[in-house]
Amino acid sequence: MLKGPFLDRNFIGSVDDFESSSVVFLGMPFDGTCSNRAGTRFAPQQIRVESVGIETYSPTFDACIEDKFMYDAGDLEFPFGNPRRVLEIIQENVQQIYASGKKVLGVGGEHLVTYATFSAIREFYDNLVVIQFDAHTDLRAEYLGEELTHAGVMYKIGSDIGFENIKQVGIRSGEKPEYSIMKKFSTQLFDKSELKCLEGKNVFLTIDLDVLELGCMSGVGTQEAGGMPYNELLGWLKELSKYNIIGADVVELAPDIDPTGVSTATACKVIREVLMLL
Amino acid sequence: MLKGPFLDRNFIGSVDDFESSSVVFLGMPFDGTCSNRAGTRFAPQQIRVESVGIETYSPTFDACIEDKFMYDAGDLEFPFGNPRRVLEIIQENVQQIYASGKKVLGVGGEHLVTYATFSAIREFYDNLVVIQFDAHTDLRAEYLGEELTHAGVMYKIGSDIGFENIKQVGIRSGEKPEYSIMKKFSTQLFDKSELKCLEGKNVFLTIDLDVLELGCMSGVGTQEAGGMPYNELLGWLKELSKYNIIGADVVELAPDIDPTGVSTATACKVIREVLMLL
Amino acid sequence: MLKGPFLDRNFIGSVDDFESSSVVFLGMPFDGTCSNRAGTRFAPQQIRVESVGIETYSPTFDACIEDKFMYDAGDLEFPFGNPRRVLEIIQENVQQIYASGKKVLGVGGEHLVTYATFSAIREFYDNLVVIQFDAHTDLRAEYLGEELTHAGVMYKIGSDIGFENIKQVGIRSGEKPEYSIMKKFSTQLFDKSELKCLEGKNVFLTIDLDVLELGCMSGVGTQEAGGMPYNELLGWLKELSKYNIIGADVVELAPDIDPTGVSTATACKVIREVLMLL
Amino acid sequence: MLKGPFLDRNFIGSVDDFESSSVVFLGMPFDGTCSNRAGTRFAPQQIRVESVGIETYSPTFDACIEDKFMYDAGDLEFPFGNPRRVLEIIQENVQQIYASGKKVLGVGGEHLVTYATFSAIREFYDNLVVIQFDAHTDLRAEYLGEELTHAGVMYKIGSDIGFENIKQVGIRSGEKPEYSIMKKFSTQLFDKSELKCLEGKNVFLTIDLDVLELGCMSGVGTQEAGGMPYNELLGWLKELSKYNIIGADVVELAPDIDPTGVSTATACKVIREVLMLL
Amino acid sequence: MLKGPFLDRNFIGSVDDFESSSVVFLGMPFDGTCSNRAGTRFAPQQIRVESVGIETYSPTFDACIEDKFMYDAGDLEFPFGNPRRVLEIIQENVQQIYASGKKVLGVGGEHLVTYATFSAIREFYDNLVVIQFDAHTDLRAEYLGEELTHAGVMYKIGSDIGFENIKQVGIRSGEKPEYSIMKKFSTQLFDKSELKCLEGKNVFLTIDLDVLELGCMSGVGTQEAGGMPYNELLGWLKELSKYNIIGADVVELAPDIDPTGVSTATACKVIREVLMLL
Amino acid sequence: MLKGPFLDRNFIGSVDDFESSSVVFLGMPFDGTCSNRAGTRFAPQQIRVESVGIETYSPTFDACIEDKFMYDAGDLEFPFGNPRRVLEIIQENVQQIYASGKKVLGVGGEHLVTYATFSAIREFYDNLVVIQFDAHTDLRAEYLGEELTHAGVMYKIGSDIGFENIKQVGIRSGEKPEYSIMKKFSTQLFDKSELKCLEGKNVFLTIDLDVLELGCMSGVGTQEAGGMPYNELLGWLKELSKYNIIGADVVELAPDIDPTGVSTATACKVIREVLMLL
Repeated sequence: MLKGPFLDRNFIGSVDDFESSSVVFLGMPFDGTCSNRAGTRFAPQQIRVESVGIETYSPTFDACIEDKFMYDAGDLEFPFGNPRRVLEIIQENVQQIYASGKKVLGVGGEHLVTYATFSAIREFYDNLVVIQFDAHTDLRAEYLGEELTHAGVMYKIGSDIGFENIKQVGIRSGEKPEYSIMKKFSTQLFDKSELKCLEGKNVFLTIDLDVLELGCMSGVGTQEAGGMPYNELLGWLKELSKYNIIGADVVELAPDIDPTGVSTATACKVIREVLMLL
Repeated sequence: MLKGPFLDRNFIGSVDDFESSSVVFLGMPFDGTCSNRAGTRFAPQQIRVESVGIETYSPTFDACIEDKFMYDAGDLEFPFGNPRRVLEIIQENVQQIYASGKKVLGVGGEHLVTYATFSAIREFYDNLVVIQFDAHTDLRAEYLGEELTHAGVMYKIGSDIGFENIKQVGIRSGEKPEYSIMKKFSTQLFDKSELKCLEGKNVFLTIDLDVLELGCMSGVGTQEAGGMPYNELLGWLKELSKYNIIGADVVELAPDIDPTGVSTATACKVIREVLMLL
Repeated sequence: MLKGPFLDRNFIGSVDDFESSSVVFLGMPFDGTCSNRAGTRFAPQQIRVESVGIETYSPTFDACIEDKFMYDAGDLEFPFGNPRRVLEIIQENVQQIYASGKKVLGVGGEHLVTYATFSAIREFYDNLVVIQFDAHTDLRAEYLGEELTHAGVMYKIGSDIGFENIKQVGIRSGEKPEYSIMKKFSTQLFDKSELKCLEGKNVFLTIDLDVLELGCMSGVGTQEAGGMPYNELLGWLKELSKYNIIGADVVELAPDIDPTGVSTATACKVIREVLMLL
Repeated sequence: MLKGPFLDRNFIGSVDDFESSSVVFLGMPFDGTCSNRAGTRFAPQQIRVESVGIETYSPTFDACIEDKFMYDAGDLEFPFGNPRRVLEIIQENVQQIYASGKKVLGVGGEHLVTYATFSAIREFYDNLVVIQFDAHTDLRAEYLGEELTHAGVMYKIGSDIGFENIKQVGIRSGEKPEYSIMKKFSTQLFDKSELKCLEGKNVFLTIDLDVLELGCMSGVGTQEAGGMPYNELLGWLKELSKYNIIGADVVELAPDIDPTGVSTATACKVIREVLMLL
Repeated sequence: MLKGPFLDRNFIGSVDDFESSSVVFLGMPFDGTCSNRAGTRFAPQQIRVESVGIETYSPTFDACIEDKFMYDAGDLEFPFGNPRRVLEIIQENVQQIYASGKKVLGVGGEHLVTYATFSAIREFYDNLVVIQFDAHTDLRAEYLGEELTHAGVMYKIGSDIGFENIKQVGIRSGEKPEYSIMKKFSTQLFDKSELKCLEGKNVFLTIDLDVLELGCMSGVGTQEAGGMPYNELLGWLKELSKYNIIGADVVELAPDIDPTGVSTATACKVIREVLMLL
Repeated sequence: MLKGPFLDRNFIGSVDDFESSSVVFLGMPFDGTCSNRAGTRFAPQQIRVESVGIETYSPTFDACIEDKFMYDAGDLEFPFGNPRRVLEIIQENVQQIYASGKKVLGVGGEHLVTYATFSAIREFYDNLVVIQFDAHTDLRAEYLGEELTHAGVMYKIGSDIGFENIKQVGIRSGEKPEYSIMKKFSTQLFDKSELKCLEGKNVFLTIDLDVLELGCMSGVGTQEAGGMPYNELLGWLKELSKYNIIGADVVELAPDIDPTGVSTATACKVIREVLMLL
């Protein structure tokens, strides 16, 4: 072998082996059902490359990535044009992670991947709540005749565990019937104090990055005017650290759509902060 | 004819015919007097194309585009290098809209088009107030020797109906003499409560998109540091819904300047929300 | 209705109704199986918008678009994540075109759409040859386990009508087994004189725009170093005008990948010249 | 004053004063009549800034910029929305250059500026021929009702000095009536040997950069598929050095359209080589 | 000379000669030690070019650029690959400015240039405090073995004048040992009222533009999620006008990274407002 | 470990271990002395990521990457602002490669890295010739006072082994003194037949990607109008396969400068074809 020194090729601060890890960074480069601009398939690899630009120390949590023993497993390889097979591959791998007593930090890809991750985790945990940060409610029962799409991922999850076990933050767009579901089941949280409802629950955290304000997160497939400042998201995560987060994912970054790189840089830091919750 | 199904080619949620409509979306692709970067001429067609990406439902107003019976008339065709002829064409078409008992939702193009729209409407309404959302005060009496420019559109309107009938929100730039006019006639509004001055008036609403913060609205010809968050603009529009809005336009988007598409996506939603006021 | 004048919203030079047309421009905005960067779904609408920038007169053929009576039918609407249903929708609509005695000028979308167009035409014509301009040979029997992908479209067609009825121009990339098929069936043409093999045949022409040199056609999902200058393609098309072209498509433009617009501008002109053959 | 050293802010290799110069680089940042994308107004300043990236030595002519005593006069300032006044300002300044016994190297801006430059020179020279490198023939008598546009600049010049005194190289697009004029007056040159017709003439050279192949010159307002490789243009310029070139301009660069900077880099070198002819 | 009129080529509103000036705009196009994306070397020239797009009037300070007698000295020319020589050149030129009784407004380039400017000023003033607006604390003692880097500029300054004389606003990233220094010496200010500590001090102001929110300032080499809105920065500057600012710089703009131009437009206005403090 | 399947993270077709390899792909992400736009430091990692988009089969050489036993060692890590230390690190690692009986395929980074690679190889081979494909002659004795810069790399090499042992292809730019050296030592080759001079020599091949035409290779720091089509470069490489190539590098890609990705896609294929010579 060569003497180097060499640049790290994993997400910054990762440990070198699966065995000694507590959390597994798993890339899920799938964008086969997105209704607007594709490109989330390139997110995990660009996040990995750009992660070298962030500090491993989080001032918010006064802790370092190295303290969390995260293993970067790389990106799953998927067939094209076959969403069902993609979901199976994700589900099988996430099962292995939990069977090994570790937690997943999934990195999309489009939001539909969350359904596969969730389905794997459901075999290991009950009393589940999913907390979703998102611009879009994702509660469509079907989209142009298809049931499995990124616009309907929360409808699938709600159908499985009850819509009352979905909690949503930052929603600012949806069709009228989706808003009806939201009202009926009081899914939306507007204030951090409402997070108390998570007490005693096993919480899966899913962050669709389009929850952030569009100016700093233009690199998403479905751009939605408005959005939450990054610091506000940090505040929610800080509060979430009081609860039992049993897995998480960060989805919908489409790095090529934002040629400035701001969106990817922000995604890297969101992942660092989410890791602090696991 | 073919069976399809086909994608809609009008602004999303539009009605199919002029006759049954209440509001007319009229594209005004003119950018012949802009002093910095041109490109607003491409706004209406890109807005139309991208509108497919927004929901037709407005959570702010709990209403859908379909409820407003808007007809998308397409984009006017203009000669090049002849601003006076362009203004005539706009004025003639807006006259037809109001002669048919409908309202216009003009989509620029540069801000000078507002002068033609305003001039047409003035034949149908008196007791007019123009409320302007803008980064720039647009009160230049002349610009490098020319009187008809996007930087002087409000000076022209103020000269016609009195500067006291101009109300301005979000202004953050201008030359010293322009600020003198603003002070003399108290044109600026700083708080939503000041909108009460619109009571009993026929209000024309003109939104120069550069009023929004630069991070989410980089696609404008004259970029101005700072700006209003999208949600703050929504708040103003919500309040404006209490008054008698008799026409509106949304101008100065230059879509090619923002390769991420964020500016166009935001413009589509501004148009949807403005429509709710008509 | 309004007086206008209004800008045309169809491909430049089109006729207004289906009935009086000879050729139908049909948008097929599908990119669900592409293996690298997606985005071809936005091609037909951007081509339509940008077509206003080309002349309707072709110096190569000394004829105008108006002379060919082309109808712009718009873009088909497809579900997401279901390639088989997409192909059915295309096939049904192309059948209607040929049942009406017209020819199709399909505009992709990814190359897989050609299989649906071809399948529809095959019901109306025998003695078919498909001539393909492409950087990639597209002869993969399967791709990551899937049979229906843009990388295998010519394998599907060859399996239906015999690989000896595929003629390929400009191929510069493929896997070793694909090159074996090419050699076995002598599919490649290297010189315009070899086009004589088309005599007496019903010829379907499919142009994957990545056949062109990468410098002027960066807006494709699978960028391949090298390529044919535009003028060389024009020379092949001029020669093809001697044969019986019974349908055509132009595929794989991904307009967002090329922010300069050069690729879309070039695609518009390729379509104009291909129209001259129909 | 400060000690520096400081970077030069003029076009690289320029002399410091007007008096001692033989050639005047004059920026003409006007794009008020362009029919497609504007932005040529930013060309002269970006060309000046980027010129630091080229060598001052031309291997083709075995000479340096410094040998030609060029003065960089800066960019004229124009009003907006008033093409006639713009042309007057150009014409007055070019007259001063020729009244001082120097030659102009005009840098556009759009092609219409050539008409003003030409009109000034015509007062100082007779027996004039204009040789035009261009993708477009620019022989429109009018465009949407306007006579003075970038699409009609050669029609204006031909009307003044006779169309037989226009020579065109690289034309690949035009409307049918324009091609009729070209044929009637044999304006097109296809081979360098045809340049002999310039013998004994006073030649004004105008280069619309869109004559170059689109891959290396995407930064132009009217992108036209195909085009001449840079080396082929160099060959024509080498041959032109045998004739009496009494002035020149290089127009239609729109630097913002090409974010890679390739177009501006190429324009800088075209200007260096054109200077060698003056 | 020619009659013109010509566009100004200096920063807008500058005076024409060094002698009559009070403040010197000095471009420092150096980016040789930046650890992520380079490109700050192009900032001063693009700022100069884009400054034409801002008003010379500042509503915040009710004053014009012309009132401050700023001279635009141009950009220093530096060797490549030799940071020590670069720092010497800057230091010598800033010395000349202060020896002439003027103040510097330095425009980077990367943040390391501040160390040279500071070192020159230190010869003329004692009782110095440096107030830093920045996303990064820049307190690294060394970086990959190098001591002189943009990530360690404040460590160098603190070592010279004591870390208690560094005041920091907007810091949101750093390594753990850097945060320890910050805490030990209470360098961070969180509220404008804390600026009172500047009373009686000679204050050098250094603004790393990455202190601003990423959405409006993507054009920096080290993009850091989050950030301060532009209006908040204005508030701090307004408050700073009460103290004795004896020099300033604005650094780390990398204009090519932000193709929309928003970052450069914002930088121009930051410079205008900083000038009001000198 | 997880079941996967996972995407490969090395250059496509690489072997998994150093020991069994014949060729070592070594990333050298250094751009510290480049005189124009930096960014070549990001080339090796983007090349690795994008390599998944190319076929491993080369039709030109009828061979696959897998046949060559290449090991992807990753990217060296360098300090910032210290070119001499960077060259040492490279030299040490390349020495290890040759001490292990393997060959290097260096991937820049700027052209200066070639001097370190060359210096390492020189300890293992005599009778060396360096063949350089480049737009620029790189024969500057110094550049703004510095001797070690990307513009002088061939001067350094020529000083070590004699300028008659440098052979150059594709040069199209240089200062006058550089052209004098070229003429004096007949370094330029204009025709493939001249490659015979390599017979009996140990040949190091260095490709500065700016030798290619600018349209397909805009992603380089020093863009130079004109250039060689990709197919012409392939022809030279095919001819070079007759000689004894003992090492190679491919340098000067700056991927961020070309947002279309065309330059990186082309670089990947150049590397594949160069590998076939080793």
